[in-house]
Amino acid sequence: MNIVDERSKARKVVEDTNFDYLIMFLICMDAVVLGLLTVGFADVNFVTTLFLLDRLCMAIFIVEMLIKMYAYGPRFFKSGWNVFDLVVITVSSLPVASCLIVLRTFRLFRLLRYVNRFKPMKNIINIFLMILPNFAAMAAVLGVFMYVFGILAVSLFGDVFVEFAELPSALFALVQAFSPDSGIIRPVMAVYPHAWIFFLSFSMISFLIVTSFFLSVISAMVHKEFKIASNL
Amino acid sequence: MNIVDERSKARKVVEDTNFDYLIMFLICMDAVVLGLLTVGFADVNFVTTLFLLDRLCMAIFIVEMLIKMYAYGPRFFKSGWNVFDLVVITVSSLPVASCLIVLRTFRLFRLLRYVNRFKPMKNIINIFLMILPNFAAMAAVLGVFMYVFGILAVSLFGDVFVEFAELPSALFALVQAFSPDSGIIRPVMAVYPHAWIFFLSFSMISFLIVTSFFLSVISAMVHKEFKIASNL
Amino acid sequence: MNIVDERSKARKVVEDTNFDYLIMFLICMDAVVLGLLTVGFADVNFVTTLFLLDRLCMAIFIVEMLIKMYAYGPRFFKSGWNVFDLVVITVSSLPVASCLIVLRTFRLFRLLRYVNRFKPMKNIINIFLMILPNFAAMAAVLGVFMYVFGILAVSLFGDVFVEFAELPSALFALVQAFSPDSGIIRPVMAVYPHAWIFFLSFSMISFLIVTSFFLSVISAMVHKEFKIASNL
Amino acid sequence: MNIVDERSKARKVVEDTNFDYLIMFLICMDAVVLGLLTVGFADVNFVTTLFLLDRLCMAIFIVEMLIKMYAYGPRFFKSGWNVFDLVVITVSSLPVASCLIVLRTFRLFRLLRYVNRFKPMKNIINIFLMILPNFAAMAAVLGVFMYVFGILAVSLFGDVFVEFAELPSALFALVQAFSPDSGIIRPVMAVYPHAWIFFLSFSMISFLIVTSFFLSVISAMVHKEFKIASNL
Repeated sequence: MNIVDERSKARKVVEDTNFDYLIMFLICMDAVVLGLLTVGFADVNFVTTLFLLDRLCMAIFIVEMLIKMYAYGPRFFKSGWNVFDLVVITVSSLPVASCLIVLRTFRLFRLLRYVNRFKPMKNIINIFLMILPNFAAMAAVLGVFMYVFGILAVSLFGDVFVEFAELPSALFALVQAFSPDSGIIRPVMAVYPHAWIFFLSFSMISFLIVTSFFLSVISAMVHKEFKIASNL
Repeated sequence: MNIVDERSKARKVVEDTNFDYLIMFLICMDAVVLGLLTVGFADVNFVTTLFLLDRLCMAIFIVEMLIKMYAYGPRFFKSGWNVFDLVVITVSSLPVASCLIVLRTFRLFRLLRYVNRFKPMKNIINIFLMILPNFAAMAAVLGVFMYVFGILAVSLFGDVFVEFAELPSALFALVQAFSPDSGIIRPVMAVYPHAWIFFLSFSMISFLIVTSFFLSVISAMVHKEFKIASNL
Repeated sequence: MNIVDERSKARKVVEDTNFDYLIMFLICMDAVVLGLLTVGFADVNFVTTLFLLDRLCMAIFIVEMLIKMYAYGPRFFKSGWNVFDLVVITVSSLPVASCLIVLRTFRLFRLLRYVNRFKPMKNIINIFLMILPNFAAMAAVLGVFMYVFGILAVSLFGDVFVEFAELPSALFALVQAFSPDSGIIRPVMAVYPHAWIFFLSFSMISFLIVTSFFLSVISAMVHKEFKIASNL
Repeated sequence: MNIVDERSKARKVVEDTNFDYLIMFLICMDAVVLGLLTVGFADVNFVTTLFLLDRLCMAIFIVEMLIKMYAYGPRFFKSGWNVFDLVVITVSSLPVASCLIVLRTFRLFRLLRYVNRFKPMKNIINIFLMILPNFAAMAAVLGVFMYVFGILAVSLFGDVFVEFAELPSALFALVQAFSPDSGIIRPVMAVYPHAWIFFLSFSMISFLIVTSFFLSVISAMVHKEFKIASNL
């Protein structure tokens, strides 16, 4: 009974509006601090202060997580945003090896949780999440085509052009070739006059796949509107 | 009663079609004059004439505003276009310090009021205003992502590449990296072979956010059509 | 009665499928001939033959027009495609001064008339014509903004940068600045660190105007579908 | 009766889930092998192994086709995917002359068949196939315009600029001119100050044609949704 009591007390704390504003303020301050840390000020004291502020924010966020987990128990994991926060904070507070220091920046994605409070932003983020599966599908189909065209490009142009000598480089060159003004296509066509067939097919297929993606999401959205309308 | 009489007389003047055409003509002339003032003619007399014409237009616009405010009284501020005109004219006639002279150009935005008379243009401007909140939401979400990726870029590439040494410069370089043909990505990848993961994630997330914005406005528009259709 | 008789005979000729195929074949041949004329063959006889073929096609097209006008009388001008043909042929057969020789190429637009026979192409051309007023509206609104931003750019950057010294050049530079990778923005920002506000506002407003155009045409199209659906 | 028996046995084999997984695994392995073959390892034995694996995959695919054709008889050709497989495998196993070796890469398109099993990918591929006729129509209309503008460009700028000296090169330069930052337009405008009219018309017409294509497919899709909704 004591635990239940303490839990409900903890819940009161984390559900308090002021607590929420405090966390929101700390995330914003943390964003500014991390931004300032990239500047490289001459004043060592100032940099140390910034660094300490950053450590402090991180500590508070970890404590916040622990309180929330204590307050809600297993139900904590039912909220997608809580899991999001937990992952973001865990990743950003991994033991700070030199190459992992950048991960602390991920904490700033918590800003999205507060951004989510305003209706048009929530709308955008919801649509963002809704179109993710379709986007992954497009990426997979586009991936197959790019892989095939990449291998083709290496076989066709790899002997003469350094850009197409290896597969990763060739894939990058293909992405560059989307921009019609790129300096990739003209030299290739000077050696292989029929190379335009290759680049044109590639551009057209990519264009069609991306257009198909747009249509699939527009279609899904119109479909949803019809459902909403028919339920009225 | 005298004032009421004068007010209704003033209202008759400003609501007269010819008065309207006169103002419209003056705005167009002002647009041409401001355009010609950028040319830098050798003939000093001509430039002085242009300058005087510009001053004259401004004076007439201020008088027009005063008459309108007198004619309508407080109701003047109920029309969005009147407020728009007032702001534009006030801003463009601020005491002309050398760096503020450019503000007079804002007067030309009054052209939009007359553009608004033709139905398809009115349509475009209405949609423009309708999608502003969604656009602001997209800008905010995109802003959070760009800020995080900007800080990441400074931490990751800032030591080696001048473009990524400071946050504002890094943000600009990220915008440039949208164009696949830009000269930013290749040198970075020569030093950090895995940098493509960073740039690809950034491009894909930005693409998804912009697509979400498009879908949110298309969705809002289809929703409106359904409402119109159900009211028929 | 003789004239009526001759007219109906003429109408039979021009409405004959074979006559139609002949004209279609001649237009296609003319397209090939005009294409070959750009190559500049060494063989003078061949070039002369091509040139004569081109003259011949033109002569036949003029005769075709005259027969059609005779056959249909004033009703000839009721068909949009007939007027289109007449304008195209008149323009392309104007007395051939050296700088007007290029106008003969306009005859090839007659291909569009035959392209129009296949349903999906007809669909595209119809939509093309349907969105023209909205496109003109967008061009006008965008034009006002570009004019204002062009004058602003000349006032702000014209003293230092040649690209912004005059209005037409500044407008072109603004169009170039749409491409984030362009070499225009960085040098300007090196001198005026706040220039990004100018370029960002310009890009965002242009983006919003173009998006508004897309939405206005999508909206018109969805509206049409609702009308079709409600009539079923 | 023996043949019928054997056919149904063969059908059991090819319809077995494990057989399907085996083929799927082989296609994926083949994709990796073909990718590795582009790397050019120093170890000759490894390359030979890869090459033999590739031959083996091809042999198995041919056997698979033969079994399937035997199992289904003429009904084999009723499935679009079977025909697709047959074409892809036939093309990719043509007698390997040096310039045709690249065709073996087409075998990888068989990956699309398996990609097709996941609903969102199937959706994308279906839309891809659905919009193909509209895309072809757009390509034809755009083709007519580009041909005319290409000939115009050769006539107008061909004497001075190498890029516009011949039709194919001029068409490529026109595609490049879509990118406003391209180095094509400025030099042309330095010689022909009115060239912007040409490039602007070309860009606007191309923009309108592509927009018309988008609208035609969105329209078709909304139309389909209305049909689905009215059948409910």
